[in-house]
Amino acid sequence: MKILVINSGSSSLKYQLFDMEKEQVLAKGVCDRIGIPNSFIRHIYNGNEFRKEVELKDHNDAIREVLNALTDKEHGVIKSMDEITSVGHRVVHGGEKFYRSVIIDDEVLKTIEECIELAPLHNGPNMIGIKACMKLMPNTPMVAVFDTAFHQTMPKKAYMYALPYSLYEKNGIRRYGFHGTSHKYVAERAAALLNRPIEELKIVTCHLGNGSSICAVKNGKSVDTSMGYTPLAGVPMGTRSGDIDPAILISLIERDKYDSTMLNELLNKKSGVLGISGISSDFRDLDEAAEKGDEKAELALEIFAYQVKKYIGAYAAAMGGIDVLVFTAGIGENNPGMRKRIVSGLEFLGIEIDDEKNMQKGEERDISTPHAKVKTFVIPTNEELAIARETMRLVSSN
Amino acid sequence: MKILVINSGSSSLKYQLFDMEKEQVLAKGVCDRIGIPNSFIRHIYNGNEFRKEVELKDHNDAIREVLNALTDKEHGVIKSMDEITSVGHRVVHGGEKFYRSVIIDDEVLKTIEECIELAPLHNGPNMIGIKACMKLMPNTPMVAVFDTAFHQTMPKKAYMYALPYSLYEKNGIRRYGFHGTSHKYVAERAAALLNRPIEELKIVTCHLGNGSSICAVKNGKSVDTSMGYTPLAGVPMGTRSGDIDPAILISLIERDKYDSTMLNELLNKKSGVLGISGISSDFRDLDEAAEKGDEKAELALEIFAYQVKKYIGAYAAAMGGIDVLVFTAGIGENNPGMRKRIVSGLEFLGIEIDDEKNMQKGEERDISTPHAKVKTFVIPTNEELAIARETMRLVSSN
Repeated sequence: MKILVINSGSSSLKYQLFDMEKEQVLAKGVCDRIGIPNSFIRHIYNGNEFRKEVELKDHNDAIREVLNALTDKEHGVIKSMDEITSVGHRVVHGGEKFYRSVIIDDEVLKTIEECIELAPLHNGPNMIGIKACMKLMPNTPMVAVFDTAFHQTMPKKAYMYALPYSLYEKNGIRRYGFHGTSHKYVAERAAALLNRPIEELKIVTCHLGNGSSICAVKNGKSVDTSMGYTPLAGVPMGTRSGDIDPAILISLIERDKYDSTMLNELLNKKSGVLGISGISSDFRDLDEAAEKGDEKAELALEIFAYQVKKYIGAYAAAMGGIDVLVFTAGIGENNPGMRKRIVSGLEFLGIEIDDEKNMQKGEERDISTPHAKVKTFVIPTNEELAIARETMRLVSSN
Repeated sequence: MKILVINSGSSSLKYQLFDMEKEQVLAKGVCDRIGIPNSFIRHIYNGNEFRKEVELKDHNDAIREVLNALTDKEHGVIKSMDEITSVGHRVVHGGEKFYRSVIIDDEVLKTIEECIELAPLHNGPNMIGIKACMKLMPNTPMVAVFDTAFHQTMPKKAYMYALPYSLYEKNGIRRYGFHGTSHKYVAERAAALLNRPIEELKIVTCHLGNGSSICAVKNGKSVDTSMGYTPLAGVPMGTRSGDIDPAILISLIERDKYDSTMLNELLNKKSGVLGISGISSDFRDLDEAAEKGDEKAELALEIFAYQVKKYIGAYAAAMGGIDVLVFTAGIGENNPGMRKRIVSGLEFLGIEIDDEKNMQKGEERDISTPHAKVKTFVIPTNEELAIARETMRLVSSN
C-alpha cells in the first residue's frame, strides 16, 4: 500500500510518498513559492535530487507537479497515480470537533472550514491543499490528521482558562495544544522501547524545535500541554515569547501605543530566544555565541532550559509522578547541551542522564544512567510517518 | 518601643500600632471612603470598637484622625504621638531599586515616585500616605517596606521574559513579584518551626487569598514567584485570570474590538474563579455552590487547585527539590478542602498531609503525616507585624 502525505502551507507544499509495507519513503519533496515569482519543485527519490523551476500559480499547480514528479519516467517512483491508495493531510486545527483522524467527506470539509477562524494562517492553506488534491485525485480516499486531536483528551481543569465562561462558549477560547501528532508518536515509541503498555506510564514529552511544546501523557492520553489557545503559549521558542504576564500587552498598548498587529508581530516574530539574545532564533548560533562569551545568548539558553525544566516539574505534579521523559524535534534530538541544561537538578524526580550517552548521535536511544528511576529517551519525531500510519489504519478499516 | 504601621490605599488607610516588646497590637483600624462622601474611621482597641463618621477630604485628614484616635482620652492607647518611635509604611512596588526595606529620606521618596509608573494604582496612594504622615510627624523616622523587595534575589533566568531585551531596558518589563513581605515572613516562620537554618531549606510558600501567589524560597532567598510584571500573572485568583495565552488578548482586540481599558477590566475584575463560576470570587461561596452540585463552581475550584499544584511541581523542579510547603493567607489558612485538593497526587514529591490535622483550626501548625518527607505547614501570615519588625530593626540599627 502506497500513501501520500501532504503538508500544505500558504506558499509551500511538502509531500512524502510511503510504501507502507516497509514504512519506507519512496520519494519526498516540496513545492515552494506557490503564487510567488520563481516558484519551483524540489523532489528527492532513491538518493537523488531533482529541482525544476516551474510556474506554480496555485496549489492545484503544485499538486499536479507533485503527481508529475512521482510518476515521471526518469525521476518517478510509481507508474501511475492509481498506485496511491490514499492521501493523508496534515491539518493544524481540529477545534473541539476532531478528537482523532477522519476520512474526509463533505461534512468533514465543512467542519474543517469552521475551524479556519481558530487558525487562519494554517487551516486555510491546509484546506486549499486538500481541495486541490481532491480535484486531481477524485477517486482516492483522503484522510485528515489533526495537530490538536491528541490533546482532546485533556480534562476540563487543564484546558479551561480562568476567564469568563462565555468566552469559551462564544469564542471557543480554551487550550487546544498543538504538535499532537508528534507527542503521540514519540510517547508511543517510548512505551514500545520500554516494552511496557503505554496505559500504565506517566510520560513527559518535550517537542523542542523552532516551535516548542511540552506534553503530559498519562496512560497514553494527553492530559496537559504547554501550547494554548494558539501556538504562542508555553515555553519560549525561536521567535515566540511563550507565557508572559498578560498585563504586559495592556501596558504596551497604553504606554507605547501598540495595536494588535504590532503585538502579534512582537510576540510571534521578535520575541523568544531571538528577542532575548538579539542574535538569532537558531540554537546553534546561540550555542556558538554563548561559547564565545556573549551574555545575552547565554541568558537566552538559560531561560529556555529553565522554562522547560519547570514544565517538566509541573507535569510531573499534574500526573502524580513521572516514569519517562522524551526529547524530540530539532533541538530535542540534536542538542545534547540543551538536554543537559534542562535535566540538571531534576535528580530528585529520578531523572539522571549519562553524559556519554547524551553526547552520542544517532537514532532512538535511552540516555539515562543505568540506575535512574525515570527513563530519559531521545526519539526522533516523524510526523509524516505517523500521518501515513493513521491514514492506512483508517482506509484499511473502512 | 511603639511602632505604627500604615497601609495606605487610594480611598482607605489601614493602621496598626504595635508595642514591640511583646509584639502586641495596642490598637488598629481603618479610615475609609477618603475623599468620598460618608467617610469614617473604625478604631479597635483593647477589645473595643469605636466608629466615627468624620469628613476625610484627603489622606492628611485620615492620618490626623488616626493620631487623634490613638491619643484620645477615651479610646486612645498612648498619651501623645511622641510615644510612636517610628512609622512603617507598606509600599507595593520598589522596582529594581529597593531590594530591602529603607529609612525614608528625600532620595528614597524620589525613587518611590519613579516607581509609580510601574504600579500607579498602588504606589501613588502609598506615597500620599507617607507624605501625609511626614507632614504631621515631622520628627518621627519613617520606613518603607516593599512588596517586591524579597523577590529582588531572583536570578535573571527567572525574572526575564522571552521578549526583546530592549523592553526590559526601556520599559522595565520583567518579573517583579509581589506579596514579598508575606512570603518572607512565612518562610522564616517555617524554618523556625522546624528549628533548622533557613539557609539549608527549599521552601514553596503558597499565599492564597483574594490575590494569590506562589514563591520558591531557596536558602532563604526568593528564587522565583508566580506573579510577574504585575499582580495579574500566575495562578487564577478571585477575579484575576492569572497566566493565559497572550494571543487571547490579540484575538479579543481583533475579533471583539476590546481596547486596553476593557482588557484590564476583563482580566483583573471579571476573570479568575468568578469568571469561571459566574457565581462569586469568594471561595466560601464556591465551596457551598459546589457542594450543592454547581458544576462551574466545582470547575473553578478544580482549576485553582490544579494551577497551584503545577506551580508547586514547577518550583520543586526550579530548586532541585522541596523540603517544606507552606500555606498562608485567607484561603491558605482557612480552607482545608482546598489544601487537600492541592496536595493530592503530590505524594511522589514526599508531600502528604494528615486529614485530621488539616481539618483542625488554629494557629501555626504542621499538617503533614508523621512519615512525610516534606513538611507541610499552615502559617497565618502577618504582614503588619513583619513591617513593624523591619521598621524596628532599621530604626534601632540607625
